[in-house]
Amino acid sequence: MKRLVLLRHGESQWNRENRFTGWVDVDLSEKGREEARTAGQLLGGEGFVFDIAYTSVLKRAIRTLWTVLDEMNLMWIPVTKSWRLNERHYGALQGLNKAETAQRHGDEQVLVWRRSYDTPPPALTESDEFWPGKDPRYASLATEELPATECLKDTVARFLPYWHETIAPQIRDGRNVIITAHGNSLRALVKYLDNISDEDIVGLNIPTGIPLVYELDDDLKPLKGYYLGDQEELKKKVEAVAKQGKA
Amino acid sequence: MKRLVLLRHGESQWNRENRFTGWVDVDLSEKGREEARTAGQLLGGEGFVFDIAYTSVLKRAIRTLWTVLDEMNLMWIPVTKSWRLNERHYGALQGLNKAETAQRHGDEQVLVWRRSYDTPPPALTESDEFWPGKDPRYASLATEELPATECLKDTVARFLPYWHETIAPQIRDGRNVIITAHGNSLRALVKYLDNISDEDIVGLNIPTGIPLVYELDDDLKPLKGYYLGDQEELKKKVEAVAKQGKA
Repeated sequence: MKRLVLLRHGESQWNRENRFTGWVDVDLSEKGREEARTAGQLLGGEGFVFDIAYTSVLKRAIRTLWTVLDEMNLMWIPVTKSWRLNERHYGALQGLNKAETAQRHGDEQVLVWRRSYDTPPPALTESDEFWPGKDPRYASLATEELPATECLKDTVARFLPYWHETIAPQIRDGRNVIITAHGNSLRALVKYLDNISDEDIVGLNIPTGIPLVYELDDDLKPLKGYYLGDQEELKKKVEAVAKQGKA
Repeated sequence: MKRLVLLRHGESQWNRENRFTGWVDVDLSEKGREEARTAGQLLGGEGFVFDIAYTSVLKRAIRTLWTVLDEMNLMWIPVTKSWRLNERHYGALQGLNKAETAQRHGDEQVLVWRRSYDTPPPALTESDEFWPGKDPRYASLATEELPATECLKDTVARFLPYWHETIAPQIRDGRNVIITAHGNSLRALVKYLDNISDEDIVGLNIPTGIPLVYELDDDLKPLKGYYLGDQEELKKKVEAVAKQGKA
């Protein structure tokens, strides 16, 4: 039996302000840092050990991972960062308040933008301050790889090659892997692992800072998936994520 | 012209207690964390940018690097950790107080152990609590690679292959590199870069937390090497390192 741990970063400053974040490099809030410490203590206390870690190139995920590794006394393990684990690119919604956007465009439209599998939000243009082509961390991407917006389907399409080519072989070789990433890049992976339909994935929400443990068979098919820690706390957090996009 | 930055980690708890540390995984002191923040602010303020970073598998070096990258808003760059950048292994001296050891064995003997190029301190045995063979971070090392003690010549011998095969090609390809490591692993590299004799290296001391900048030609021969920041502060720090092994 192989084990994989997924962890959504702790609360960010823009989670707190209820703004669409996407690829904007917003840092953790103080509460988010605390969530990361708690996640690390929980994993260490439950006897988890990791051999290798993957995260995005966004600091809220990297800081969450660093904090977890620090708490677990595992700062020395290899960490690989890739843009393919980034949050879904939220296009022209990045920076906007979710509730205000819902007031302007309606709850239903915002739910479509937030959770529809294949309808992306309005796209950024190259003149936008958040255009990723200006950022040195994406300088190695081909023009056609640089997103101006993404629906979850697009996130799945750029995450899964990295899963298959880079992460899955490590798990198959027996290494204990933690992936610290984002609400939607983790939804993309969970959709694939649990074989969730395009319709049902709309209702799936992943809370910040709570380790999601998968037990996998030799073909990396899930035998079991569960969140660590207090299940009441978990329920509240999942409901809070679902409510964010309502006016 | 190519540029390389070397940084010795900030003060550790055992630097503070004047104990031989070597491969023992001692954390930074509060002062050491502050030194790391200052180094990051200095590098950022002087317009340095890095594309890739190397460090050891010891947390005092890793935390120094993480702090620097955080201050420079460069948490996203690739970081590679290798045991080959570890501090010199101090053998059976690890954990002992430097001044007490000098009282017992004499200043001269301690200077030989600390600074002689080719006389290692007494070796650890496999039953010692600090024997590296027990530590999972060294599980991939061949038995003959696991040190029981090291003189600087041994540190040079295990650091330089990594320099030639891994770090130097990145610099040749035009990448801006920072190496965050330890007093003696950095002395090993400086000895090589500046072609310092086995005799003269005894007198060279590298202070904690002050960026050492090398400007290199296309063959990676140094054109210039200098410490960033306040030169008076620097002088005091270098003298303090030299004095540590005296009774």
